[in-house]
Amino acid sequence: MRTSITKVESNKIITKGYSQEDLINNLSFPEMVFLLFKKELPSEKELKIFNHILVSFCDHGLTPPSTQVARLITSSGSPLNVALSGALLSFGVNHAGAIEKIMDLLQDRLNNKKEITDEQIDEIAINIVNEYKDKKMNVPGYGHRFHEYDPRAKKILELATEEGFVSNHTKLALSIEKHLKNKKIRLNIDGMNGAILSDLGFKGINGIGLFIIGRLPGLIAHINEERDNENIFRKLYELEDIPYIGDEDKVL
Amino acid sequence: MRTSITKVESNKIITKGYSQEDLINNLSFPEMVFLLFKKELPSEKELKIFNHILVSFCDHGLTPPSTQVARLITSSGSPLNVALSGALLSFGVNHAGAIEKIMDLLQDRLNNKKEITDEQIDEIAINIVNEYKDKKMNVPGYGHRFHEYDPRAKKILELATEEGFVSNHTKLALSIEKHLKNKKIRLNIDGMNGAILSDLGFKGINGIGLFIIGRLPGLIAHINEERDNENIFRKLYELEDIPYIGDEDKVL
Amino acid sequence: MRTSITKVESNKIITKGYSQEDLINNLSFPEMVFLLFKKELPSEKELKIFNHILVSFCDHGLTPPSTQVARLITSSGSPLNVALSGALLSFGVNHAGAIEKIMDLLQDRLNNKKEITDEQIDEIAINIVNEYKDKKMNVPGYGHRFHEYDPRAKKILELATEEGFVSNHTKLALSIEKHLKNKKIRLNIDGMNGAILSDLGFKGINGIGLFIIGRLPGLIAHINEERDNENIFRKLYELEDIPYIGDEDKVL
Amino acid sequence: MRTSITKVESNKIITKGYSQEDLINNLSFPEMVFLLFKKELPSEKELKIFNHILVSFCDHGLTPPSTQVARLITSSGSPLNVALSGALLSFGVNHAGAIEKIMDLLQDRLNNKKEITDEQIDEIAINIVNEYKDKKMNVPGYGHRFHEYDPRAKKILELATEEGFVSNHTKLALSIEKHLKNKKIRLNIDGMNGAILSDLGFKGINGIGLFIIGRLPGLIAHINEERDNENIFRKLYELEDIPYIGDEDKVL
Repeated sequence: MRTSITKVESNKIITKGYSQEDLINNLSFPEMVFLLFKKELPSEKELKIFNHILVSFCDHGLTPPSTQVARLITSSGSPLNVALSGALLSFGVNHAGAIEKIMDLLQDRLNNKKEITDEQIDEIAINIVNEYKDKKMNVPGYGHRFHEYDPRAKKILELATEEGFVSNHTKLALSIEKHLKNKKIRLNIDGMNGAILSDLGFKGINGIGLFIIGRLPGLIAHINEERDNENIFRKLYELEDIPYIGDEDKVL
Repeated sequence: MRTSITKVESNKIITKGYSQEDLINNLSFPEMVFLLFKKELPSEKELKIFNHILVSFCDHGLTPPSTQVARLITSSGSPLNVALSGALLSFGVNHAGAIEKIMDLLQDRLNNKKEITDEQIDEIAINIVNEYKDKKMNVPGYGHRFHEYDPRAKKILELATEEGFVSNHTKLALSIEKHLKNKKIRLNIDGMNGAILSDLGFKGINGIGLFIIGRLPGLIAHINEERDNENIFRKLYELEDIPYIGDEDKVL
Repeated sequence: MRTSITKVESNKIITKGYSQEDLINNLSFPEMVFLLFKKELPSEKELKIFNHILVSFCDHGLTPPSTQVARLITSSGSPLNVALSGALLSFGVNHAGAIEKIMDLLQDRLNNKKEITDEQIDEIAINIVNEYKDKKMNVPGYGHRFHEYDPRAKKILELATEEGFVSNHTKLALSIEKHLKNKKIRLNIDGMNGAILSDLGFKGINGIGLFIIGRLPGLIAHINEERDNENIFRKLYELEDIPYIGDEDKVL
Repeated sequence: MRTSITKVESNKIITKGYSQEDLINNLSFPEMVFLLFKKELPSEKELKIFNHILVSFCDHGLTPPSTQVARLITSSGSPLNVALSGALLSFGVNHAGAIEKIMDLLQDRLNNKKEITDEQIDEIAINIVNEYKDKKMNVPGYGHRFHEYDPRAKKILELATEEGFVSNHTKLALSIEKHLKNKKIRLNIDGMNGAILSDLGFKGINGIGLFIIGRLPGLIAHINEERDNENIFRKLYELEDIPYIGDEDKVL
């Protein structure tokens, strides 16, 4: 067991090289998050967009399975940390898994090239769209089961444009959207934030972690609401809501 | 199923009454956290101390069981959301459980009294100290297994004092510390933050949730470090490190 | 780190004093479970009733929150061990928590008395019923939200009677049932099994563990069914199924 | 929501077509497990080997990360279901993941062929060994970090031979072992049981589920031991056991 993150001595705690007193004194929480994920602190401009991204993950009501799980576990009487833990177990493949996939895809194809023209980006986008079409798969980060366009993605793009934060990964993500045949399939919040986080220098593997940090307060709000306002161990389905489609009348 | 947190319609998401576009545009992430826990947004002064508190929870190295669990699960090959989930399962009673207990204790004894003298606070503190002494229990939120005084608690108090943020709950917590017989038992970070969060108007039940939000980025940093820098499925103990103290030589 | 359960040496594994080769050769799985919970192996008669109990926990369809959680997590794309893990998080207080409570209650009141008359047992039962009535609480292990009488409990009692396995804890449980005012409140499966397990010499703390062992195969069957027969990331609720009862039209 | 596993009506529960009264009356717990995984009940011979397999998974002392996680969470004060849940999170890739992989491999290569000579099986084995050699990977289910030969695997093979239970998948697994260059790499318990379970007609996807059922009682024994015999929130590492390898002396 060894670590480069935090040194603990009696009465002294150092994290990422700084005393925790110094960090507590000088950093906002989003800066602290940034520092724990990366080697450096964000610039003022980076911090602004980073805050927008974290806020945009905050909540999506009762629709996600993670939120339903958190409430079911709470209704069963388990404490907040346990209900939150259950919620996290549904993230990662079909649920919030797209953010890592699009980050990997964008970063892999751009491969850190700085000098690249808009035409070259369009070419990469067209290739991606065609590849996924051939594989009969959807490009990750596009389309939403409830929204035609995701209002969060639209606002993030607007702010990124205003604040001068649109760089190559975001350009590539937008170009993919432009070249998708189905015009109703738009960048969703995972796709948009994955693109911006790539421009911020985050690796794909960090996408889900940042999503979880952003979503946690919303999950906690749902847990609090369930505990404070609903019956314990409530029946979400009556027996007649659950059709049985198996065998009957067998005897041993 | 119903909720007062977020309304989702096609292309429109409203949280706590505000459109998410508005929230993304105008709130920093800590303000968003505050809003999801409470009915109102923090004042500038409240936001400052709220940031200090969240930062102060960030990491305590490899010492906590939660962090060890996160690394063991990562070493076994499970993804980040699963390792984080495991980490959360060790919070709540012996580990970070004190914050809720001290918040409940301080809030219960002060009972929202605004007009209260320092002498009256001292009297309440003396009663608490005596009660716990009689029960042979430690007052929750005091003492740390690694620190004589917790450097984070000291810095938070210094900032709270400087920023004019010391109100009755914090005064009571300090008075308890003053009246503890063992002068080496000082307010730890759970105790200090529990007191300030009480002055901010948070209920005890919210203590663990805010702690988890603050600690999550540190846990993610450890998961990333384990995955990127250590051998997979590493042996943390050799066979000879695990004494066997049971029966032998039985036969069926 | 030390243990009295299993000694591991290179090429040799000893559990509870026996070589694992010996255990594999000679024990059925329920005997192995019994051995790991207790110091001794079950008699033939004890093993029979122990099998009945484990079978009786097997499944309760889609009604329990644990099963719903397992399916939600599976639908999100997480693997079987993760979905199972989530299911376990809803056990323990409102869900399967009664088994420990009734075991503690029965064992506490009988206090290992061997020589006790049926009249004395009735007296204890009447006291328990009155105490809970005064506290306005239900005696744990009685009543079921879907069944008037629990068919599993009835069958277990029938078999226990037939096999000569009704001892004091079961007698006390039945006497409580007899003295409950509401004749529709009958021993449920937790109550019945808690009584028999007490007669078998298990402590209350082991009730939930045995329940989980019994229920696990049913949970796995549900996970398999969800993964193999349902759409991934399926919508369990449409937007219109989730009423919003919060604020609207607020602006920052 | 719908299911073919269990039908719940008031006072009546049917599972896999049988009333639960009938199942409780007539099945041993391992038969019930078998029924919930498969369409049919085991023959007497199948049931015997199925019991051996479940017993062989029971415990491996304190060496696995799953067991360490269960004890860390217990030490933190969380209840049994929560500690078990944490343990399950470390299964699946590096830890017990081999069983599914070898089952898929053996079943894929034999492809349900009934009429196959030992020479043809040897040929398939040689191909597998060469393929993995070319990929510089280990064949899953062979080798153990603590044992040169796994005593459990040896005993299971001995019993399977004695009881006339060695069929094509097991023959293929043994042939692979014979053709591995490194004679110290032998079938481990995952490999051996994966082969037999394949001969029993279980799919790879079921391997981890059966492993978990078998291991659960051992995990519970460790949780009970930790809770009953060790200090709460015990320090597994002293500060000096955790080297810090990161930056120091940075200032904001």
